[in-house]
Amino acid sequence: MGSLNDIGVAAGINILSALGFLLAFAVLRIQPINDRVYFPKWYLKGTRSSPRHIGAALSKFVNADVSTYMRFLNWMPAALKMPEPELIEHAGLDSAVYVRIYLLGLKLFVPIAVLAFSVLVPVNWTSGTLEDEKSLSYDQIDKLSISNIGTGSKRFWAHIAMAYVFTFWTFYVLYHEYKVITTMRLRFLANQKRRPDQFTVLVKNIPEDSDETVSEHVQHFFAVNHRDHYLSHQVVYNANTLASLVEKKTGLQNWLVYYENQHAKNPEKNPTIKTGLWGLWGEKVDAVEYYRTTIEELCKQEDEEREKVVSDPSAIMPAAFVSFKSQWGAAVCAQTQQTSNPTVWITEWAPEPRDVYWPNLAIPFVSLSVRRLIMTVALFFLTFFFMVPIALVQSLANLDDIERVLPFLKPIIQRNSLRSIIQGFLPGIALKLFLIILPTILMTMSKIEGHISLSGLDRRTASKYFLFLFVNVFLGSVITGTAFQQLDTFIHQSANKIPETIGESIPMKATFFITYIMVDGWSGIAAEVLRLKPLVMFHIKNTFLVRTDQDRDQAMDPGSLDFGSNEPRIQLYFLLGLVYAVVTPILLPFIIVFFSLAYLVFRHQIINVYNQQYESCAQFWPDVHRRIIIALIVSQILLLGLLSTQEAEKSTFALLPLPVLTIWFHYVCKGRFEPAYIKFPLQEAMVKDTLQRATDPTLNLRAYLKDAYVHPVFQGGDMYDLVAMDEEEKDPLLVATKRRSRMNTPVDSRLNSSSGTNEGEFSRLRP
Amino acid sequence: MGSLNDIGVAAGINILSALGFLLAFAVLRIQPINDRVYFPKWYLKGTRSSPRHIGAALSKFVNADVSTYMRFLNWMPAALKMPEPELIEHAGLDSAVYVRIYLLGLKLFVPIAVLAFSVLVPVNWTSGTLEDEKSLSYDQIDKLSISNIGTGSKRFWAHIAMAYVFTFWTFYVLYHEYKVITTMRLRFLANQKRRPDQFTVLVKNIPEDSDETVSEHVQHFFAVNHRDHYLSHQVVYNANTLASLVEKKTGLQNWLVYYENQHAKNPEKNPTIKTGLWGLWGEKVDAVEYYRTTIEELCKQEDEEREKVVSDPSAIMPAAFVSFKSQWGAAVCAQTQQTSNPTVWITEWAPEPRDVYWPNLAIPFVSLSVRRLIMTVALFFLTFFFMVPIALVQSLANLDDIERVLPFLKPIIQRNSLRSIIQGFLPGIALKLFLIILPTILMTMSKIEGHISLSGLDRRTASKYFLFLFVNVFLGSVITGTAFQQLDTFIHQSANKIPETIGESIPMKATFFITYIMVDGWSGIAAEVLRLKPLVMFHIKNTFLVRTDQDRDQAMDPGSLDFGSNEPRIQLYFLLGLVYAVVTPILLPFIIVFFSLAYLVFRHQIINVYNQQYESCAQFWPDVHRRIIIALIVSQILLLGLLSTQEAEKSTFALLPLPVLTIWFHYVCKGRFEPAYIKFPLQEAMVKDTLQRATDPTLNLRAYLKDAYVHPVFQGGDMYDLVAMDEEEKDPLLVATKRRSRMNTPVDSRLNSSSGTNEGEFSRLRP
Repeated sequence: MGSLNDIGVAAGINILSALGFLLAFAVLRIQPINDRVYFPKWYLKGTRSSPRHIGAALSKFVNADVSTYMRFLNWMPAALKMPEPELIEHAGLDSAVYVRIYLLGLKLFVPIAVLAFSVLVPVNWTSGTLEDEKSLSYDQIDKLSISNIGTGSKRFWAHIAMAYVFTFWTFYVLYHEYKVITTMRLRFLANQKRRPDQFTVLVKNIPEDSDETVSEHVQHFFAVNHRDHYLSHQVVYNANTLASLVEKKTGLQNWLVYYENQHAKNPEKNPTIKTGLWGLWGEKVDAVEYYRTTIEELCKQEDEEREKVVSDPSAIMPAAFVSFKSQWGAAVCAQTQQTSNPTVWITEWAPEPRDVYWPNLAIPFVSLSVRRLIMTVALFFLTFFFMVPIALVQSLANLDDIERVLPFLKPIIQRNSLRSIIQGFLPGIALKLFLIILPTILMTMSKIEGHISLSGLDRRTASKYFLFLFVNVFLGSVITGTAFQQLDTFIHQSANKIPETIGESIPMKATFFITYIMVDGWSGIAAEVLRLKPLVMFHIKNTFLVRTDQDRDQAMDPGSLDFGSNEPRIQLYFLLGLVYAVVTPILLPFIIVFFSLAYLVFRHQIINVYNQQYESCAQFWPDVHRRIIIALIVSQILLLGLLSTQEAEKSTFALLPLPVLTIWFHYVCKGRFEPAYIKFPLQEAMVKDTLQRATDPTLNLRAYLKDAYVHPVFQGGDMYDLVAMDEEEKDPLLVATKRRSRMNTPVDSRLNSSSGTNEGEFSRLRP
Repeated sequence: MGSLNDIGVAAGINILSALGFLLAFAVLRIQPINDRVYFPKWYLKGTRSSPRHIGAALSKFVNADVSTYMRFLNWMPAALKMPEPELIEHAGLDSAVYVRIYLLGLKLFVPIAVLAFSVLVPVNWTSGTLEDEKSLSYDQIDKLSISNIGTGSKRFWAHIAMAYVFTFWTFYVLYHEYKVITTMRLRFLANQKRRPDQFTVLVKNIPEDSDETVSEHVQHFFAVNHRDHYLSHQVVYNANTLASLVEKKTGLQNWLVYYENQHAKNPEKNPTIKTGLWGLWGEKVDAVEYYRTTIEELCKQEDEEREKVVSDPSAIMPAAFVSFKSQWGAAVCAQTQQTSNPTVWITEWAPEPRDVYWPNLAIPFVSLSVRRLIMTVALFFLTFFFMVPIALVQSLANLDDIERVLPFLKPIIQRNSLRSIIQGFLPGIALKLFLIILPTILMTMSKIEGHISLSGLDRRTASKYFLFLFVNVFLGSVITGTAFQQLDTFIHQSANKIPETIGESIPMKATFFITYIMVDGWSGIAAEVLRLKPLVMFHIKNTFLVRTDQDRDQAMDPGSLDFGSNEPRIQLYFLLGLVYAVVTPILLPFIIVFFSLAYLVFRHQIINVYNQQYESCAQFWPDVHRRIIIALIVSQILLLGLLSTQEAEKSTFALLPLPVLTIWFHYVCKGRFEPAYIKFPLQEAMVKDTLQRATDPTLNLRAYLKDAYVHPVFQGGDMYDLVAMDEEEKDPLLVATKRRSRMNTPVDSRLNSSSGTNEGEFSRLRP
């Protein structure tokens, strides 16, 4: 337990470092040379030059205009200026809703903090139990917390009453926010321009058929079972090898460009490289020549592979994107079960084309459940055994222990200023370092689980990460910090003892979490705005690889929100805020500062920097909502545990309804709002169909959808000829025989038809 | 722990009483006068006289044919004779699948028992730990159980291996059975004759519209959003008052008949009654006259109420049965969400007309979730505080305690035979009595929860009842029997201690559960076949009320399977069997006898007696499956707890994968089979539509569906005129204006149209 002094030092350090980051950002961002690092979104939109920097663009590399340095903080109001509808238009609904999570934090905690400071802090402060018990070492900060109330005191009723008030306020805010965001989502969906995914359903696990190719089978099935609505389909190719070849080629091309540039700068000297491992040994060859031939070879390989994928029937995966004539038809197909065997012909809304995660499209049903079993077990082990190293580092931060183990360090440790720095800084940093490699591992696990959209992968990763943060950062810090050596006995404790033990040590960990918030929340967010890694990477690429403006565009790395690792971290703040709202309200202002700063920074980033890979229309909100509910329940149970150790016997009965009510509230919200994120109502579909038919009666939907769901490595190729579009309106009717149905396959692209064995029969349909 | 002797006495008593019941049944059932009690199903089918009783029908009341008495047990083979497809045809799929639960018990436990007796019993028997420890009182039966193995023995590996074998065997049997029953269900659905519910969807929570009546609103909504498929609809009336009037009238009519019969027998004397409370005081009047006038009054009231319901718009509930032109259309509507607000226009498959639970049709969404919250809390209290009285009675059965408390009873208790009777009989009986009133309470709770079909109510009641049986009968018996006084401390025990404590006392309770199985399973099932209550009721009615054969048909009470209370009781046997399979295999033969006897008895009953109220097409199977899975997991956790107390340290790691695997198996089965019980696949619907169009192209579906979903109190009335059927084929197209759409409402019955305010406008549509 650090003292007020410790917190002061930590706050000083963190405020300074946060200010340093902000200052560096303010200086760097107005340098024209960094323009593409800090404003890539506008370049991608094609509308850069930014109005605020016209003057500065005169000088090419360094901004010499002193007046702009004076206004170095005015990106902050600028970030707030853009109204929300424009923000949605500019950055998409996902981003706009994402920053609303920070806003939700403010809406939730500002009134809670006001109430807590006007009611609970006086109650705690005037109690004076700690002063009486001279034996205990205590700190000024503890006098503001619930620790200052004596056991069995009547004053606990104030805390119980506040727990109710805070819970109901949370209900109100959450319900309201869910409602607003659902409305935003529905309005966004309704106003959306025509998009291929509105008409398309992804069909997985198409059963094998000995007589027909996958393509024929799909067509016959949907022509029969969705007779009036089926339009066309696109089979899915296993192009994973091809994709990796393309990727490899891109890498080699970068090197080629690099050496060509070298050569251009210094025309006399031909750059050479060694062909062996990592260019360290082996034969010395001319670099430009070498890369050119390698790339040529790769191109050949690529062509062969492409040919193979297209012609080999086994490269067709048992999945397809099926398009319908109307959104109503697609909505029906996506929401219904197709056959009596629910493990085949599984239909779901197709993700947006850019949201599709192609490698996972062909995982069979049985394999899926085995994969999920294995990943669940793996997650368990990852979550619960990752704890050990963190706990070790945590206990290192306990300087008294260090002194005991390594007595020769005593003189250094005894110096007060250093002591404060280490105690204030190290625990947060240690945690932070551990957490950096984690999202990648979790994302890989989600990929193995077989989700088929990037947005789905992000959401699943966020769930896993939240579990991890909860167990290892929250519980881990609370338990190990006070009683790491008792961990084993703790597991063997009684079921009703666990919340008591955790609850009891909660007030004592307030200082630690305040430090954590400052390191992770304040400095971390300020570092986010600086974009150090993209800045360095851009300048390296810019120096060595960029020749044209197009190259420079590609060298930009706008990044994206990274929902999978950012959202769970916000949730940790919700958890801390809710847990400490009643126990140690002094923590709340730190959280409020975090939410305000993060809201500013991320609003700035989504306006100027991030380029989202996909648009899921805020589909993540039910997850966000659920996790705040979990945080609320945890806070209630811990308060229950804490109070039951304080001999406030009746408190158990007084607080028990809270978690029950919260779970119930969750189900009410789930029933009321969640379907809007999973299903697509038929009424809306019908309205959109009617509107579209009225506004654009001549639309050739088949042509519009034709190439929408083609694997990216095939896209832009010349393989897609338009064929027989005039036959579109022919109704496929009831497909009686195989031959008959084949006659109705005019839309099959060459890719599809060549995948079967009936090339000859198809070719006569072509002009 | 009772001795082998105790079990012998209890077995003797129960076998005798079971035989007594069976004998009484064998004698009573061949008396012609009881024919309608024991063979009502055949009367209802109109095919009675049964071929086996032609000779016996000669004498009117008593069967004098001695030869039939000799063959008094041949109902048993007869019950097995009917092949399953015929059984399904005869009694419905629900019943046929229900008896398969007993068969599943046999399939599961016979191989387990064989294995356990050939492997575990020798291992236990030869261990001889109990013989060494002279200090402990033990019994022969304990020598066969796991108690005979010394702590830390290597022999436990045999039990662990067997736990794996039993688990995988259970997986196999369960998976296979789920598959078979799903196939049966799908085949049954596919072969079903045309039924109104195949074309009909129940729409609940229709939002209010200030301009339109409910009926108009429904029609417009579906004519727009299911343009090509919508056919007609039927609004729902709040006829609860009317229904209670009708019920009251039936009761009075019974009395009228009774007094008329009295008068007919003794024409000189007019029977009189007193009009006051329960006929005990008040004015003396002529009974026949009195009932006649009362019934006349009631008829008048009924007519008024009927008129009121039909004409009062507020009597129309915001729910409707919407019918579609094809099963495809109905399947689509039932599975999709209609509007962006998921709390209105909620659609689900309509239950069969006779399965509808009318009073619950109009509960709004918000009220529903509040009701469920309250019922969940109520169920919790009912489950956990009902424990106290049972525990009291249980401890009464502990004769040593009684001796201590009431020493004057000592001489009686000391007599060995009485001791055995009380210890063998009382605990089972005590439990049994407690459980009799329970299903009614639980069913009322399910009704309050607002389920809209009788089958749904039964399923929910079964879930509640299973929870209750598990906590109070299983856990209650295990814990309180050994340590009732420690109950409070037990709750405060460590999380990993709980399975240990329960697991430890499991072997000691084997005798108790063997007795319970004999009382509840053997005698109870034998009593079921005797049908004592319906027998008495029938003879009372037959004597006093029956005048015509039709009356006699109504006096029959065939009863039904009562899934809500019978199925959880079977589940208790599954639980006991799985828990004791490894621990005390001697219990298994008792369970096998139960399953065999119950299979025989219930197969006989569903062939000859029960008349199911509804046909849910085995929709309950996922519940049955899930509860067996729960039993399996419980058995695994308890074995884990038991072994960890036996210093078999590694056993924890060896057994831990079992519950994980079981949960995974559950999800695999759920994904693979459960949708077949919830959704209706479009392919099947399309096939049936095509078939029906081919076989019956001239069917007037509108006329067929017209009266299907009318409240039973309206049915058979003359209020339904066929109107304007020739307009059926008119397509309702896009409903542009209110007037236009009204033109397309030809099918509105007089009930519907008069419910609105547009009587005049509608009437001109009628011929």
